[in-house]
Amino acid sequence: MRVLLVVSYDGTNYHGWQRQENAVSVESVLTEELRRLLKEDIELIGASRTDAGVHALSNVAVFDTQTTIPAEKICFAINQSLPEDIRVRESFQVADDFHPRYCECRKTYEYRIDNEKIVNPMKRLYSYGVYYQLDVEAMQKACEAFIGEHDFAGFCSAGAQVKTTVRTIYALTVEKQGTELVIRVTGNGFLYNMVRIIAGTLVEVGKGYIKPKDMANIIASTNRKLAGPTAPARGLSLQEICYEENPRIF
Amino acid sequence: MRVLLVVSYDGTNYHGWQRQENAVSVESVLTEELRRLLKEDIELIGASRTDAGVHALSNVAVFDTQTTIPAEKICFAINQSLPEDIRVRESFQVADDFHPRYCECRKTYEYRIDNEKIVNPMKRLYSYGVYYQLDVEAMQKACEAFIGEHDFAGFCSAGAQVKTTVRTIYALTVEKQGTELVIRVTGNGFLYNMVRIIAGTLVEVGKGYIKPKDMANIIASTNRKLAGPTAPARGLSLQEICYEENPRIF
Repeated sequence: MRVLLVVSYDGTNYHGWQRQENAVSVESVLTEELRRLLKEDIELIGASRTDAGVHALSNVAVFDTQTTIPAEKICFAINQSLPEDIRVRESFQVADDFHPRYCECRKTYEYRIDNEKIVNPMKRLYSYGVYYQLDVEAMQKACEAFIGEHDFAGFCSAGAQVKTTVRTIYALTVEKQGTELVIRVTGNGFLYNMVRIIAGTLVEVGKGYIKPKDMANIIASTNRKLAGPTAPARGLSLQEICYEENPRIF
Repeated sequence: MRVLLVVSYDGTNYHGWQRQENAVSVESVLTEELRRLLKEDIELIGASRTDAGVHALSNVAVFDTQTTIPAEKICFAINQSLPEDIRVRESFQVADDFHPRYCECRKTYEYRIDNEKIVNPMKRLYSYGVYYQLDVEAMQKACEAFIGEHDFAGFCSAGAQVKTTVRTIYALTVEKQGTELVIRVTGNGFLYNMVRIIAGTLVEVGKGYIKPKDMANIIASTNRKLAGPTAPARGLSLQEICYEENPRIF
């Protein structure tokens, strides 16, 4: 059977999701522990290859197994041996041909900014500390230009190999929560570093360096240099991946 | 002059506030960096000697110095060299005889519980993960018995040397914030492990093992065995120390 895992992790101590040589990744730790539990040579297919230092509340991965352990129980069994900074929140059976990257979905990311004069040490691992007091209203106004289908080539770091840089953003919001600003973005997919560049650009708007009314032109230019810098990984977390068709087999 | 510091720290990697041999404490790191900055042999006096693994948003410490750096600027200067998990939020001059432990004050602590079936890895360092679904209303009812002046000998770990185990609690609340429960307690002082034992006892109430109506008798018994277990350090943070007379010299 093919089993889907909903995986939560603190990315601080990992070189991202994807397995690579000479570095500890979430995928490598999870694969190793699953092999030990199931006594099989399983291979994980992840939905989202988050970068080094990026967190996830709900990333998705699937694997094929011959195990007789019921799919729903695998999450409880595997959590016994995983390190505390990785948890499998859910596990269930999906169709044998379900592929977490090729099925249509909506992904939601959150980017947290700790907007205080002096950063709170308890927030440092999960937010980007910005000393300069940000204009939240301006940031909220700038969000509008991102909504819809656009060529986001200007919001993509070099080195990405993709067929097209066109993506659809369904929602982009900035909310003030105490001293924190929470940027939430939902789209049908994101280019390399796209959410971190959107966050970095919105910070420039919050500082007054970019005007909300100029945002549509900056996007249309597809010029990476006109957008803001790539905000640090620590503020970013993958919140949810919602498939158009529920892959669960009951 | 005597300078007061408001100190914030993530206690995860420290053996508590107080300096000790063969262990890294917040006090030892802060003292060393202050000596380097001020080129003087300063001694810190802390208000609250938080335990290993306990956090602080606002602990207080004072020291005497001959420096010509204005007191208000010391926080910005020292943050340049402190590790990221310790921040001095404020610094200002106080009266030469101000002592942060002997002046009357109200201390507020927060204890966070992550009440989810599977703990969120991003919350694991700052909350106590409780799988069992807690009855928040029962916990809130049980809080009432703590309010006022009581002998809290039953809520004190062995090994404490204090003249009296009588303390006054001004407020104790349990609030639900998403999947988290936040216990907040304000008192004129707390015995060794007192807040963690209160939290551990409230968890027992939430599980139904202790009835809210029995709480007054448990407190009155002054019997440590009738109260709940000491909840883990990671959930605890010192939020505020509020002195009866503002010690600041303007």
